[in-house]
Amino acid sequence: MCEANAYIIRGKDRELVMEAVDTALPEGPDSIRLTSIFGEQKILKAKIHSLSLVDHKIFLKQGED
Amino acid sequence: MCEANAYIIRGKDRELVMEAVDTALPEGPDSIRLTSIFGEQKILKAKIHSLSLVDHKIFLKQGED
Repeated sequence: MCEANAYIIRGKDRELVMEAVDTALPEGPDSIRLTSIFGEQKILKAKIHSLSLVDHKIFLKQGED
Repeated sequence: MCEANAYIIRGKDRELVMEAVDTALPEGPDSIRLTSIFGEQKILKAKIHSLSLVDHKIFLKQGED
């Protein structure tokens, strides 16, 4: 499978917010809806900051990039 | 492997810009650097719009989300 874990960047920390993310879709102007391969959904006030797919990692960031 | 193909959204079209993307990192305020698993790099004036990882797809968009 090709899912990835989503982390939110908080300063120097990376906080895991969802495992096994399949899709990440914009939800309004400043939020994002994550859906895992298990159907779990989360809406976060954040944007996709960066990706490291071979490491199975998605990084999100709040506010402006 | 867990790479994905990157497409840029242009209206209703989706244009393939890089296959087998490993990392996507911000490059300055409004650009993104894509690196493939083969080491190929491209810098595009775009942001990450959305992800569909089980389908191996990354969607980028130019300008504001």
